[in-house]
Amino acid sequence: MTRFSLNQATTKRWPIDELVAGCVTAGVPAVGLWREEVAAFGLEKTASLIRDSGLAVSSLCRSGFFHEEDWYDNNRRAIEEAATLGTDTLVLVSGGLPGKSRDIDGARRHVSDAIGALVPDAQAAGVRLAIEALHPMFASDRCVVSTLGQALAIAAPYPADAVGVVIDTYHLWWDDQVWAGIDEAGRQGRIAAFQLADWITPLPEGVLLGRGLPGTGCVDMRRFATAVGNAGYRDWIEVEVFHEDVWSRPGPEVLAEAFAGYRAAAE
Amino acid sequence: MTRFSLNQATTKRWPIDELVAGCVTAGVPAVGLWREEVAAFGLEKTASLIRDSGLAVSSLCRSGFFHEEDWYDNNRRAIEEAATLGTDTLVLVSGGLPGKSRDIDGARRHVSDAIGALVPDAQAAGVRLAIEALHPMFASDRCVVSTLGQALAIAAPYPADAVGVVIDTYHLWWDDQVWAGIDEAGRQGRIAAFQLADWITPLPEGVLLGRGLPGTGCVDMRRFATAVGNAGYRDWIEVEVFHEDVWSRPGPEVLAEAFAGYRAAAE
Repeated sequence: MTRFSLNQATTKRWPIDELVAGCVTAGVPAVGLWREEVAAFGLEKTASLIRDSGLAVSSLCRSGFFHEEDWYDNNRRAIEEAATLGTDTLVLVSGGLPGKSRDIDGARRHVSDAIGALVPDAQAAGVRLAIEALHPMFASDRCVVSTLGQALAIAAPYPADAVGVVIDTYHLWWDDQVWAGIDEAGRQGRIAAFQLADWITPLPEGVLLGRGLPGTGCVDMRRFATAVGNAGYRDWIEVEVFHEDVWSRPGPEVLAEAFAGYRAAAE
Repeated sequence: MTRFSLNQATTKRWPIDELVAGCVTAGVPAVGLWREEVAAFGLEKTASLIRDSGLAVSSLCRSGFFHEEDWYDNNRRAIEEAATLGTDTLVLVSGGLPGKSRDIDGARRHVSDAIGALVPDAQAAGVRLAIEALHPMFASDRCVVSTLGQALAIAAPYPADAVGVVIDTYHLWWDDQVWAGIDEAGRQGRIAAFQLADWITPLPEGVLLGRGLPGTGCVDMRRFATAVGNAGYRDWIEVEVFHEDVWSRPGPEVLAEAFAGYRAAAE
């Protein structure tokens, strides 16, 4: 059985009920959900839609953003949402530098402290906090956790079933330390999610919406899938792409290409 | 005496003769030059303009681009140009992935080999090859050398006066390993150039022209200047900023702000 999961952000304009139906039709067994889209459709309504469909929820994106003032309450809500949706994986994008700060070390310490504060809530809810390292080009405004090595260091004090890490090809492909990091994450049992997106250029203004479907760029997807497999990860493999050109296309068409990209990488 | 040098790319539209006169008027003792601008004005003509002005040339940017077919001849020409212009520092931007390659390890090995092949020419000309790690967002198309650690590893087999590294705040600020790397580079005597530019968001399309003048962004410039000073570097400190908004302003005004940014960081 396939381990493919369609992350909802890849087909952002596909209404969630149609997306769920489309995944069932295509034989796709899992989806990754986003909090904003879930809230817009309704949390309980989404949860029952998903339950009725038989789909698994591979992850809920994203919580974190620890530079924001209400991070604690917001993250606790996210943990509850993950539990309600039936996923044990909550992806944390840890946030950037607060205000006009130039203290990246301080911001990284704050992320560690914040995650520590959330661990009891996460454990009580049966949800694992999945720390995602974002590409260093997001270090100032989205995520001061820039490498898998940093994510593992932040996770280290906590049990592996409470705090894990995300392996996202888009964010990590450039890092020559990533292979050793994947091995280490595997040894610790900390790989909580594995996400595929490709690196394409030129990057668009603001750089957020610059990802390519797997196979369209310069990332060696198979090398990642092999490394993550060798590290013992047997769970879902999400395709998670943000790009205006992808969003403007019909959902079923993008789903088919995402699935094909996953297959070329991982099957 | 100030160690400030104005990198020509910061005031890209300021004609070189006016730039040289402007630096002399402002009491700026050095400039960093770019090959394209030098070629447009004429190599010998630039060399004599600089000689007559009494300015020092802190570095020549940029050679490298080892993914291009004519890299060897082109880099040998660049070495000669550096010698002609009276600088001992040739900045190498090592190039991205060739064609549709996904083999970043192979591209990095090729950079090591290429630099090894150029060392005899550089030594004969009295020019030091200065390996610049570029921000990982440039890894696919401009420079597969993404961290100071990688630059040091590539430089390691060669004498420190033949192959050095560039410390550029813009490219390295996000990396928690950079402080140890600067210490190590200092111990080895490999710091060949120190360049200041600030990180500002949002990044523009293509991301190349997104730098801010020192002091306008989130990089702790003084921490870098202190670390590089503690590592024993006593040479020029360049301000090197690429931004359309900066380029569209009068050269003398930008020069004054760049100088002020340098002072706030390093004096």
